Amino acid sequence: MNVKDYMLDLGQRARAASRLMAAADTRDKNNALLATAEALERAEASVLVANARDLDSGAQRGLESALLDRLELTPARFSSMVAGLREVAALADPVGAISDLNYRPSGIQVGRMRVPLGVIGIIYESRPNVTAEAASLCIKSGNAAILRGGSEALHSNQAIARCLAEGLGAAGLPEAAVQVVETTDRAAVGELIAMEQYVDVIVPRGGKGLIERISADARVPVIKHLDGVCHVYLDDHADAAKARRIAINAKTQRYGTCNTMETLLLAESRARELLPVLAAEFREHGVELRGCDAARAVVPDMHPATEADWHEEYLGPVLAVRVVAGLDQAIEHINHYSSLHTDAIVTEDYSRARRFLREVDSSSVMVNASTRFADGFEYGLGAEIGISTDKIHARGPVGLEGLTSQKFVVLGDGHIRQ
Amino acid sequence: MNVKDYMLDLGQRARAASRLMAAADTRDKNNALLATAEALERAEASVLVANARDLDSGAQRGLESALLDRLELTPARFSSMVAGLREVAALADPVGAISDLNYRPSGIQVGRMRVPLGVIGIIYESRPNVTAEAASLCIKSGNAAILRGGSEALHSNQAIARCLAEGLGAAGLPEAAVQVVETTDRAAVGELIAMEQYVDVIVPRGGKGLIERISADARVPVIKHLDGVCHVYLDDHADAAKARRIAINAKTQRYGTCNTMETLLLAESRARELLPVLAAEFREHGVELRGCDAARAVVPDMHPATEADWHEEYLGPVLAVRVVAGLDQAIEHINHYSSLHTDAIVTEDYSRARRFLREVDSSSVMVNASTRFADGFEYGLGAEIGISTDKIHARGPVGLEGLTSQKFVVLGDGHIRQ
Repeated sequence: MNVKDYMLDLGQRARAASRLMAAADTRDKNNALLATAEALERAEASVLVANARDLDSGAQRGLESALLDRLELTPARFSSMVAGLREVAALADPVGAISDLNYRPSGIQVGRMRVPLGVIGIIYESRPNVTAEAASLCIKSGNAAILRGGSEALHSNQAIARCLAEGLGAAGLPEAAVQVVETTDRAAVGELIAMEQYVDVIVPRGGKGLIERISADARVPVIKHLDGVCHVYLDDHADAAKARRIAINAKTQRYGTCNTMETLLLAESRARELLPVLAAEFREHGVELRGCDAARAVVPDMHPATEADWHEEYLGPVLAVRVVAGLDQAIEHINHYSSLHTDAIVTEDYSRARRFLREVDSSSVMVNASTRFADGFEYGLGAEIGISTDKIHARGPVGLEGLTSQKFVVLGDGHIRQ
Repeated sequence: MNVKDYMLDLGQRARAASRLMAAADTRDKNNALLATAEALERAEASVLVANARDLDSGAQRGLESALLDRLELTPARFSSMVAGLREVAALADPVGAISDLNYRPSGIQVGRMRVPLGVIGIIYESRPNVTAEAASLCIKSGNAAILRGGSEALHSNQAIARCLAEGLGAAGLPEAAVQVVETTDRAAVGELIAMEQYVDVIVPRGGKGLIERISADARVPVIKHLDGVCHVYLDDHADAAKARRIAINAKTQRYGTCNTMETLLLAESRARELLPVLAAEFREHGVELRGCDAARAVVPDMHPATEADWHEEYLGPVLAVRVVAGLDQAIEHINHYSSLHTDAIVTEDYSRARRFLREVDSSSVMVNASTRFADGFEYGLGAEIGISTDKIHARGPVGLEGLTSQKFVVLGDGHIRQ
């Protein structure tokens, strides 16, 4: 069978399975997740053997060590993957919830019912625990999933997929609700993102390059997560202690995450007071600062920032620093350079906080809190399949609800349109 | 200036205007709509002259009469266009509404704020009143609009756009919040749907051909409204009088609308009782019936239906009729042939109604009500910019809320991530 036919076949099975999943009881979906967790626990040894096989061949093929690290299923990662399945089982089922059911003047009742999207295509790299994590969110939200992991993780993913099939089967749900693409042919991705008739949305999880390539070619809608160029703005009316805590936490709590601050903005009126203290503390953390001229006038040993720095997602211990005239310029800078991810203001001024919340056009806007909070778990979504920097459908962390939409339900008693 | 530069220039202005519109007060947006209504009333004569010019040159170019009819701004249509602006001004402003603002265990408050999408591109044909209608919805929802009407309506659209600019100016809002594409070069559409950096969503309003072409080529997300192949299923437990009322209304109240029934499904157990009565009544209305073999066994003078009939949106006095074994086959038929628009069941059986609502995968699902109710006004949305047959972002009638999305807001008091 050629790749196109193989993918169309997966698509057709997924579409059929999605109809059954959409109608599945909450209990059956939860049973599938719990049975998968048990199947994984029983199969731990064989999953780890499959993973060792992937690691061996990856090492032989000379994969870089960061990639091999992400590929490895340590016992701790394995346990947390299994625990994740049980956590998703414990979440509320969004499917079928009817909201805003109201009588209209015509006498009909109109409301909205939350329904699954249908078939979700997930494209990801290396980390095999994504297989269980993404599948569990799709199952709970009543969708079918087609999973396309990296070729370097194929054996691990197949071993995990066998447990998912076992769990689905034990709960009386269709095994085709979760399918792993078993060919390593790169053409499979091209087919997956073009099968509009079988796939309702694509969620790419990986680096910016992967997501840009997929978005450029996809015929199916993509829930995109590009980069996180996050800002913290220390306002004229910032509380100095909060400003320090938040700026340091937003940058240094973890460097490699998308909700880490990449550019610090300071109001001119506070630069002389706050910048030397912050610079010293960042230096202790080993963070390299790249400042605008005004920032370097206060702290001369910063590197000069270039235009490219305002666009940069460093994902490491580097921070761009700019002194701005005040709130207007801060908002202007953010709306120009930010990646629509997460931006925060530190201020005690009510009206400025209110303006920042309204006027900054990012998927998360914060007052007096660290950008590091932008996360599905911290927001109470229970889990997240990604963080959307798109504007339609879902913005910010995407949980179960982001894998659903709402249809209208109309209840009448023989009502006709006049 | 070539078309590409011209469109990029429009896009850049729209993006800048959209920032101001997103922050605009409800009062200013309403004032703009009311001032536009007044400007149109003052300019009625000159708008109708511009329309007459379009009609003349359309007639000379040999446009078909249906198109000329849609192009014509009669005094009645003009008044209803002006009234529409005042109705949109009276609607609640969705922008800035914060919902679900709750405390999290970390101490931060997390909620969602409704925000404009940004820049909406509207592509439509002939009817110049769409210019005012679409612009008013974009203004009220805090977006900027780029309107690309048909070349046959250019003078009418420009005359209406001048009143919109006057209204926006009078309210202190940027005139570039509504821009009409003034070139008739077809390449303009290609540029509009590709300017991802300046346009956030495209709403095409027109025939299936137009929408398919745009969807195939767009780089910007499209809120699609393809066809309306709507079904009414008369269940074993249908009340006979309701079945008759609803089937006749769903087909004959208006033939050319997308929420008109195109296929009637009947439970086998009720065919001998209901079909002859319905057939006689449809015949009186001049509706041609095309039936499956089982239907023709009951009413022999129906035309035989072919496979193509189950897919067909007739938009006229023709109806496909199929006898099905019962609810399962009805749902199967609908999920296979429906265009995900609107489908209804007529039944007195509670469990069947519940299953139909859950298992039929259409943007509107109805019990004991005519499909003709699928409409933004009937649903209480106040107005609609289209009816989405897509699954992500918005399904069914799209009102002001469909032109917005939700971002996360986080309120803290110096909170940092542990």
